[in-house]
Amino acid sequence: MTLLLSNEEIDSILDVSMVLDAVERSQRAMAALEAISSPRTDTLAPTVSGEGPATYGLKTMCGLWPEAGVAALRINSDVLVWPTVAGNVRRDRLATPGGRWNGLIILYSMTTAEPLMISPDGYISRLRVGATNALAARYLARDDARVLALLGTGWQAGGQLMAHCAVRPIDEVRVFSPNASNRERFCREIQPRVKARLVPTDSAESAVRSADIIATATNSMEPVHQMSWLRPGVHYSAVKVQEMDQAFLEAVDHAFLFSKNPATTRPQFVTLPTVKTPESTTGWWQNREGALWKRLGELPRLFTGEVKGREGKDETTAFVNNVGQGLQFAAVAKRVYEEAKARGVGRELPTEWFTQNVHP
Amino acid sequence: MTLLLSNEEIDSILDVSMVLDAVERSQRAMAALEAISSPRTDTLAPTVSGEGPATYGLKTMCGLWPEAGVAALRINSDVLVWPTVAGNVRRDRLATPGGRWNGLIILYSMTTAEPLMISPDGYISRLRVGATNALAARYLARDDARVLALLGTGWQAGGQLMAHCAVRPIDEVRVFSPNASNRERFCREIQPRVKARLVPTDSAESAVRSADIIATATNSMEPVHQMSWLRPGVHYSAVKVQEMDQAFLEAVDHAFLFSKNPATTRPQFVTLPTVKTPESTTGWWQNREGALWKRLGELPRLFTGEVKGREGKDETTAFVNNVGQGLQFAAVAKRVYEEAKARGVGRELPTEWFTQNVHP
Repeated sequence: MTLLLSNEEIDSILDVSMVLDAVERSQRAMAALEAISSPRTDTLAPTVSGEGPATYGLKTMCGLWPEAGVAALRINSDVLVWPTVAGNVRRDRLATPGGRWNGLIILYSMTTAEPLMISPDGYISRLRVGATNALAARYLARDDARVLALLGTGWQAGGQLMAHCAVRPIDEVRVFSPNASNRERFCREIQPRVKARLVPTDSAESAVRSADIIATATNSMEPVHQMSWLRPGVHYSAVKVQEMDQAFLEAVDHAFLFSKNPATTRPQFVTLPTVKTPESTTGWWQNREGALWKRLGELPRLFTGEVKGREGKDETTAFVNNVGQGLQFAAVAKRVYEEAKARGVGRELPTEWFTQNVHP
Repeated sequence: MTLLLSNEEIDSILDVSMVLDAVERSQRAMAALEAISSPRTDTLAPTVSGEGPATYGLKTMCGLWPEAGVAALRINSDVLVWPTVAGNVRRDRLATPGGRWNGLIILYSMTTAEPLMISPDGYISRLRVGATNALAARYLARDDARVLALLGTGWQAGGQLMAHCAVRPIDEVRVFSPNASNRERFCREIQPRVKARLVPTDSAESAVRSADIIATATNSMEPVHQMSWLRPGVHYSAVKVQEMDQAFLEAVDHAFLFSKNPATTRPQFVTLPTVKTPESTTGWWQNREGALWKRLGELPRLFTGEVKGREGKDETTAFVNNVGQGLQFAAVAKRVYEEAKARGVGRELPTEWFTQNVHP
């Protein structure tokens, strides 16, 4: 049988420590060349949505982890738009007429090649991104970090919040996003999931003023972290390259990316001539040379001890989660699958629905 | 609802002319830069199967066709081995303990991004490969081609046979494969699907002797077409690059590939250090330069009339189907989906199973 899980079922199983462990262990394996992620592939073309001209994108990424015996494929099918909100260009995905989105994970056995599990990617993805940034904070933020500033109140922001709270003794989170009702709603919804006190805050400046960790989780395509935020001892965290610019990364004492390896980081935009997206414009992360690029560290090398993180209380540190990897989905989905099987959670579908008695 | 189809249901819907039309129209769109395929991605790692050490491979390819409003993802999850059979290295996929294989197509709407259909890839893939080679024969083989030699009796051989019979007045097919019982079984099974007389033949030489078209559909990783087979007026067809070597292609008057575009043809092997496959070794098709590469044509340019095919009865012609494209799956699956909906064929699954109310 192939297990079909819903996000609600996954939410009942997933906990942050499980995801932190799965992400860290699989990244150690990858650093040892014992696990692998395929390049992420984005295939884009112009389309016409219910709301007018847009871009359709089909995104895939694969990860294989031989020791765990699993492989995963993560698939996103999206109608994309890039509106300007509060002066910033954003990347947004239009919902279907039924108010839903299309992100899917298929977990395969590497022993039999069969599909073990099919699930939406939302809850798993938010915690694997959150855990990746939080693992960076575990190595880079001050041990006594107590105040977290969180900018952004979308889906990823919740994962950042929960995961950072799991690695440091955070007791206050100052939450900002441009829309007041969004930040109120976000704090109300996420508060039951963490012990720290969530404080909706009406400007980025007042949110970051006394923070030990400043984490952005926005859909902005322009830099969010400001030079004026630089203070001794603070750790800065971004969920994507666009949120942190070159000058900011040059100014901090220790700056890390998730990965500098082109084989796993370069999105392969295969665009029709008429499709031009903000992501396809040049940024500091595309050059892959120069002094900044050279001094940027890679997160897995902190895990393996090849490089050191924070060495003093007053140092500034930064982490940019610059790439999603199929391996993260393989590692986390494997844990979810095992727990779901053990607890009898989910709907069993005939594996024959997704397999065949011929091989082309 | 998302339509789930089985191979048997697809077989009841698919006919060769539908596939010929879908492949040719979508390739014209691609030639006009109005449709697109992503690079095929093969991610490989060592694994341990029930039969011992093997290689696990997860393969994906995407195609988007805006005019048709659909995108498709084709997924193969395989335990791979490369045994030597009858002196030739072959690529083979091990079956699951239940005797099945894992090839899947997901058809998406480009307007809503929702999954429209999920189906196995076997029957669709065999006819889209067959149709691609047969379309080449439509432009390259003699109009009066009457005898087809078919080498290989696996899954792809059936598609080659049906499709070639649809584009030329074939009345005799001489079928060879090293194993006598395989060729007997193949002819018995496929005979009801074509009008031409199928003749199991006990050597490649006697199969090709009087053929007007010589088509190979093997899983050999070494050249199959022989210089001694060259005769005026014959068209040679291969389902993969390994079947036809450089000397043979240089010797024919007109030689065509499906595509010379690296963005769509280069398999991206992202291998662990310990994984070495016959496909990753060098071949004439990997250089992409030199006199042969320059004179090779591309199939879609025959469709658009940019280049000419056969110009005289005695010319020799060759076609190597060197790449699979996600676009082929989008084009054919769209037709299957429309027919299945119109006829009420298939099982409707809740689209909510594969979508979610959040977007990461």
